[in-house]
Amino acid sequence: MKIKNSFFKKIKFIYLSDIFKVLNVKLHKNKKNFKFSSIRDLETATKYDISFLNSLKYLDKLKKTNAKYVITEKKYENIVKEYSTPIVVLNSLKAVALITHLFYPTSLDDFIDFKISKSENYNYKKVKFGKNVLLGKNVKIGNNTIIGHNSIIESNVEIGSNCTIGNNVLIKYSLIGKNVVILDGAVIGKKGFGFFPDPKNNIRYPHIGIVVIEDNVEIGSNNTIDRGSISNTVIGKNSYLDNQVHIAHNVNIGKNCIITGQVGFAGSSVIGNNVQIGGQAGISGHLKIGNNVKIAGGSGVIKNIKDNTKVMGYPAKDIRNFLKENK
Amino acid sequence: MKIKNSFFKKIKFIYLSDIFKVLNVKLHKNKKNFKFSSIRDLETATKYDISFLNSLKYLDKLKKTNAKYVITEKKYENIVKEYSTPIVVLNSLKAVALITHLFYPTSLDDFIDFKISKSENYNYKKVKFGKNVLLGKNVKIGNNTIIGHNSIIESNVEIGSNCTIGNNVLIKYSLIGKNVVILDGAVIGKKGFGFFPDPKNNIRYPHIGIVVIEDNVEIGSNNTIDRGSISNTVIGKNSYLDNQVHIAHNVNIGKNCIITGQVGFAGSSVIGNNVQIGGQAGISGHLKIGNNVKIAGGSGVIKNIKDNTKVMGYPAKDIRNFLKENK
Amino acid sequence: MKIKNSFFKKIKFIYLSDIFKVLNVKLHKNKKNFKFSSIRDLETATKYDISFLNSLKYLDKLKKTNAKYVITEKKYENIVKEYSTPIVVLNSLKAVALITHLFYPTSLDDFIDFKISKSENYNYKKVKFGKNVLLGKNVKIGNNTIIGHNSIIESNVEIGSNCTIGNNVLIKYSLIGKNVVILDGAVIGKKGFGFFPDPKNNIRYPHIGIVVIEDNVEIGSNNTIDRGSISNTVIGKNSYLDNQVHIAHNVNIGKNCIITGQVGFAGSSVIGNNVQIGGQAGISGHLKIGNNVKIAGGSGVIKNIKDNTKVMGYPAKDIRNFLKENK
Repeated sequence: MKIKNSFFKKIKFIYLSDIFKVLNVKLHKNKKNFKFSSIRDLETATKYDISFLNSLKYLDKLKKTNAKYVITEKKYENIVKEYSTPIVVLNSLKAVALITHLFYPTSLDDFIDFKISKSENYNYKKVKFGKNVLLGKNVKIGNNTIIGHNSIIESNVEIGSNCTIGNNVLIKYSLIGKNVVILDGAVIGKKGFGFFPDPKNNIRYPHIGIVVIEDNVEIGSNNTIDRGSISNTVIGKNSYLDNQVHIAHNVNIGKNCIITGQVGFAGSSVIGNNVQIGGQAGISGHLKIGNNVKIAGGSGVIKNIKDNTKVMGYPAKDIRNFLKENK
Repeated sequence: MKIKNSFFKKIKFIYLSDIFKVLNVKLHKNKKNFKFSSIRDLETATKYDISFLNSLKYLDKLKKTNAKYVITEKKYENIVKEYSTPIVVLNSLKAVALITHLFYPTSLDDFIDFKISKSENYNYKKVKFGKNVLLGKNVKIGNNTIIGHNSIIESNVEIGSNCTIGNNVLIKYSLIGKNVVILDGAVIGKKGFGFFPDPKNNIRYPHIGIVVIEDNVEIGSNNTIDRGSISNTVIGKNSYLDNQVHIAHNVNIGKNCIITGQVGFAGSSVIGNNVQIGGQAGISGHLKIGNNVKIAGGSGVIKNIKDNTKVMGYPAKDIRNFLKENK
Repeated sequence: MKIKNSFFKKIKFIYLSDIFKVLNVKLHKNKKNFKFSSIRDLETATKYDISFLNSLKYLDKLKKTNAKYVITEKKYENIVKEYSTPIVVLNSLKAVALITHLFYPTSLDDFIDFKISKSENYNYKKVKFGKNVLLGKNVKIGNNTIIGHNSIIESNVEIGSNCTIGNNVLIKYSLIGKNVVILDGAVIGKKGFGFFPDPKNNIRYPHIGIVVIEDNVEIGSNNTIDRGSISNTVIGKNSYLDNQVHIAHNVNIGKNCIITGQVGFAGSSVIGNNVQIGGQAGISGHLKIGNNVKIAGGSGVIKNIKDNTKVMGYPAKDIRNFLKENK
């Protein structure tokens, strides 16, 4: 399945002055009112894009960036100056969120799809619909797929052939492969739990990523799988998820994984292929779990795990050590 | 938001003889058939109310109570006699449940709202409804609020302005502030998991409290938030809850809290302001968690936690100690 | 409640040649094309049934079996030969799954019930239905039972009298007793999370067991209770389950149990009577938990537990030891 993302409309150009307005920064004098075509990381930014530096981890990328303007914080101002024009803000990631929202104005206003209509009003050949199914605009559904009662498939979602979507399922901002099963009550593709705390009113992070579910996957009942913020949330080919699993934004699960009931993944972790995770285990955010890893039920994983390792415990460690210590 | 609770109809008076009947206690001779206007705790009871003492913790309040009749157990009979008239039962809390149910006869018979009708049959200006929305009687909804497909808002619920209620959401016995988001599949306001075990047929505890959700709150997908038994369940202003969070009856969450996925709260705990709780953590019942507390993901909290503390582990302890012991 | 299972249609006879075809085994020469009436375990198999041996634990049963053909693996071939005719395969349980599917061809094709119709099209006396309730064929519902809005009761389900089924509930392949409460969003009776991993496309295990819910049970909101694979999933009389509980296939919960929020059970565990389990505890698969056991919240149980024991911890141990070690 080729991954594309036509879900979020991008504004063609944003002026520097508009960016400054949303950042509540005064336009530096002598600065031309540049117009940007997008916001991108230092590596992929072109000279028409605005970029950002929030850590010296990215110094190498700063040195090579094509971006002419870089959002950053006071402490990095002088470094940025050497390679680009800094725009100094208090919180660079918050600024990125605000600018992303400027470019993708619908990326936060996406809770309900009001373009939806009953399946009877469409003409899908070779798709079998239950009662009260609601479909958005431009939904693509492959042959021999069945959609259960009361389910909602929002605009622009694509579902491959030979899939079974259960009852009371909600799917939005997702591309789904062939031969996929999604069981009753699952909620797929809503925005992730990302925001900047603000005592007056938290500022939500725009979510312009999607959920990609590859061929032969099974998703359990009452699962919640959030879409990505900038990258995508991906469930790899032939992976099976049991009931009540929670997958946060940007998580990437490999192929042939087995994820048992009530497992939870915090944001942005990358899980290898052939990984097996026992019930109620939790995986912290931003981790890398290798291939062929086995994580025992109830474990709490807070560090990266190498290929071919079996872990157990909270925090999770080598399973032999854990069992020895807990006889 | 002013908190009131017009959800449960109270019987105006209950006779002592009717109370004795439901408690399966014989009317003591020479006792007048007093009529009560309510059941209340020792402190707030007037001379027209019946009250109860189930622990010597409340001795001070017994000494000052205005209640003329006090439900209690054999072991406290003589103490109660000094200040009021004891009504001796085997299990005082069970007796309280039965009497509360007498005063609030609909407090257990509240599973389904049959007074509900499609949103098309109402005339809410400036509210946007999805398909198949069902609304009870006397529902109040503020301007610019949107309600997603297939959602059910039961009678007497109030929702403020600028709210977004997702799809397949169920809300009952709740007062909801302004600018609140409730995501898909959440179940808000059902009675809590409270009952007296009885091998023949458990006796449910009446739930006459409600759920109060303050301004700017976000509630995640497939959350379950139970209403209070006598007091209310409260989610404080600007607190955000991720997916699959479970909040039991009478829990009180402060302002600006961040509650991550799959966290669970047992009944009656009080959480301070600015508290952050990592994924899958569990909070036992009847605890007090201070302000600015951080609880790491996967922790099991079984004791009170002081302000400004970071904890981790099961049972949760100071995070530095936990990490030192678990290198 | 008498337990019967009329949910899955069995093929009357299957020929040995068809079994060999699905197992991808060549028909041994000189073997007659026997026809089988069922697949059963060694103990209950008649001379018309095919059976299987996957462990020497069952040697005693092999010695007495009436089965003329026994599926097994290379290592047990010679032992089986002494008592029956072995059919050698690489993975005997996978072979059993494939043959079970041959006998019960609808046991995997059961995700959506398309024979469903609105409750208005039926004539149930003394049953009260909410809006948009969908009922399958041959559903039996007792007097004074109420079914909430948007709920789906699939074909052949039986529900006793005086039950309350909440809103958005899905029930399939289940027999439900009297005076049962099932709260909003519960998913009852879908197939369990059972399959043989296969890198090309996992092979699902047929589920021909059902869910049996006995009298006076309460099932919480957003629970998921999977039906059994060959035996049934059972919730015993007067047991109460809180919200977001997950019960895997073949689990058997005794009478008068109290299961608190977010508890999870892996497959095939047997829980005694009067067992109390605190929130978020997890019970591994294939365990036996005795009567009157108390399991503290957050515990991870990975061993059998004797009657009258209190445990806590991960892995769960005697609660006094756990608390002593974790002061």
